[in-house]
Amino acid sequence: MEKESWLMTTLKQLNLTDSMEQEEGFSRLGYSEEEWKSIAVFEEKAISIGLEVRRDEAGNSIARWNANDDKPALAMGSHLDTVKNGGGYDGVAGVLCGLAAVKELKEEGFQPAFPIEVICFASEESSRFGVSTIGSKAMTGQLNKGQLAEVKDDDGISIKEAVESCGLSWKNITDAERPKEALRQFIELHIEQGTRVEEAGKSFGIATAIACPTRLMIEIEGQSSHTGSTPMDKRKDALVAAAPIISFISQRARQLSDENEVPVVATASMANVYPNKMTSIPGRVELGVDIRSVSDELKRGLADEIQLELEKMTTQYQVKINTRTLVDDDSVFLNPSVTESIKETGEQIGYHGLMMESGAGHDVMNMASRWPTGLVFIPCRDGLSHHPDEFASESDLNMGVEILKQYMKNEASNPS
Amino acid sequence: MEKESWLMTTLKQLNLTDSMEQEEGFSRLGYSEEEWKSIAVFEEKAISIGLEVRRDEAGNSIARWNANDDKPALAMGSHLDTVKNGGGYDGVAGVLCGLAAVKELKEEGFQPAFPIEVICFASEESSRFGVSTIGSKAMTGQLNKGQLAEVKDDDGISIKEAVESCGLSWKNITDAERPKEALRQFIELHIEQGTRVEEAGKSFGIATAIACPTRLMIEIEGQSSHTGSTPMDKRKDALVAAAPIISFISQRARQLSDENEVPVVATASMANVYPNKMTSIPGRVELGVDIRSVSDELKRGLADEIQLELEKMTTQYQVKINTRTLVDDDSVFLNPSVTESIKETGEQIGYHGLMMESGAGHDVMNMASRWPTGLVFIPCRDGLSHHPDEFASESDLNMGVEILKQYMKNEASNPS
Repeated sequence: MEKESWLMTTLKQLNLTDSMEQEEGFSRLGYSEEEWKSIAVFEEKAISIGLEVRRDEAGNSIARWNANDDKPALAMGSHLDTVKNGGGYDGVAGVLCGLAAVKELKEEGFQPAFPIEVICFASEESSRFGVSTIGSKAMTGQLNKGQLAEVKDDDGISIKEAVESCGLSWKNITDAERPKEALRQFIELHIEQGTRVEEAGKSFGIATAIACPTRLMIEIEGQSSHTGSTPMDKRKDALVAAAPIISFISQRARQLSDENEVPVVATASMANVYPNKMTSIPGRVELGVDIRSVSDELKRGLADEIQLELEKMTTQYQVKINTRTLVDDDSVFLNPSVTESIKETGEQIGYHGLMMESGAGHDVMNMASRWPTGLVFIPCRDGLSHHPDEFASESDLNMGVEILKQYMKNEASNPS
Repeated sequence: MEKESWLMTTLKQLNLTDSMEQEEGFSRLGYSEEEWKSIAVFEEKAISIGLEVRRDEAGNSIARWNANDDKPALAMGSHLDTVKNGGGYDGVAGVLCGLAAVKELKEEGFQPAFPIEVICFASEESSRFGVSTIGSKAMTGQLNKGQLAEVKDDDGISIKEAVESCGLSWKNITDAERPKEALRQFIELHIEQGTRVEEAGKSFGIATAIACPTRLMIEIEGQSSHTGSTPMDKRKDALVAAAPIISFISQRARQLSDENEVPVVATASMANVYPNKMTSIPGRVELGVDIRSVSDELKRGLADEIQLELEKMTTQYQVKINTRTLVDDDSVFLNPSVTESIKETGEQIGYHGLMMESGAGHDVMNMASRWPTGLVFIPCRDGLSHHPDEFASESDLNMGVEILKQYMKNEASNPS
């Protein structure tokens, strides 16, 4: 039997497993014991290839090559936390490929002209606290400590408590902020979580922008009554009022995507029905809606159109509707020159890249507020992510390593 | 201050309360301690007016006037259990008015020609175990003991365990069955749970038939993926596939009700969405549907049409759909001569009755399988039931007492 590669062994180690085939997937929530164990593996691995490691005040782990050089570093990285029952590649791929690229460059005797870092950000996923990218927010001075402290997970544990249970001090978390002169660039590698690269017949993707979400919570209040004794024309059925909205959101986003240069995606992703009993007409429905486009105009236009549709439902179905905007972030545009350099780097070693938007948020969107940044996508099977069947092939991971390696060679040999 | 009537005092006592205004309503689930306490109040009250009380093997309580006479009895009654956070009139009204009618007849010195009973059936509501009218099923030999024993409530307690926790023996529950010669008639009084009586400008309702439900559980299986990175045309969104079905069920039932003599009601009353996370496309939806009409043909025709619509969705939305029929009961027709007698009784004392169908199921539908039966509706405010705001006025409750009293006078003075 062929000896397993360092890459595949490390993939499993970072996932704290012997096998990537796990029916229940991987669950390493942000600021949990599992995330901490995975970061500890990252640090052992980084030390073993000769990097110097430090954990900052937000729990981000920074592995640095040429640590004593105080020039601005070229940094790469991603995260090791997952959603509940998620996959073993989302986040892990970026940390792994960064580490592998550095290892290979060191083995080849490459001498970078300035420090190189691999960063593992803490708590990227929003699934535990409803707040994403906590580690990279802290590193870029964007953490609203007062607002977040008492945000709780499903078990009633606050972010503050979770952070402190990891041995960190909530009081000091904002000290994780790094000045502009600490880094020269940041590059994230991530699985695509879609199938656009494959469909375009390309090998990898380069994100030009990140479509940050607008999120609505729509509360439809009708009147619950008995399913058997309430005539059809006397009903205030909140689910019947919700149905055309669900259809509208999907149809209109598809239409806008067809009509415009940049796509719009919109999803009624959550629906809670009350009382949710077989013999009771739904008296109340809560509908969670997630809308994204790198065109903030298209995105907010769709949010406005949804609001207009809701107003129609109010009259038509005799319901009251209240809409709360939970999130309404501007899109983040990545550095065009970094983005172009990544594309050229790929071509240099035989991989053709697709310039595309990212529908999902990543740590790089925070890093972009302070440093020139780029985002590399490697394909994942069927575009699946946040799922036990999430998968990226060894060859695509290796391509990721090669691209990062070549990028460092190009950049760190010739400091501008 | 005017002294409170026996009726209003007893209403509160049966509801185990000092005030009918309860924000959380009343929760006396079937075979619970609360139901048992309420039945105990009923029995004390029955004994205090001189009735003989026995509890049968299913927990039904039977209060008998002229207990030593073994002629077939004229029985009235309903139930004292409620849904969770239900009202204090659904079920209670029938038990209360029956008891009050007997009390007044006794006080007036009326001597019935045969025994009269007030029956309080155990566990009528389906909300605890998903199975309705357990007590009256047992009394009429329709309880499938083998099938029901292990049906569990939300806390994992089986019907068998619940029954035995009330001091009954599951083994003997079917001994509650009564032979045909035990009763001559059964009359249930119940709140209408709708507003048809009021809209027709009548005082009370008489049900000609009970529209028993056909219930479907529709499972729509799509593919969950990331809301941000999955283009609109690559989705298998189970909730988007469910939405037109929800609309169809409502629109088509309304159309059928307009086109036909008898109404059809149909409700997508339950919807469970998975994973129900803001950033995940719904990969799976379970939709519970309740369809009723006294026309079994219309009802089953609609169930078939829903199935055809579902098949369209399979192709259009790239989902798999599986439909299970949970319940498919034939309508129950009540005795026309009993029904006509109730109407005439009302007119005799100045109340005009509306002949109508019952959309909701009641204990009387089981009793109808063995005895001539009738069902009297008294109005309830806004047609609301299974809700803390459920309400029937003192004058409507008194009308109920008068109708039952006059009915007994008419029937029990002149045994046929």
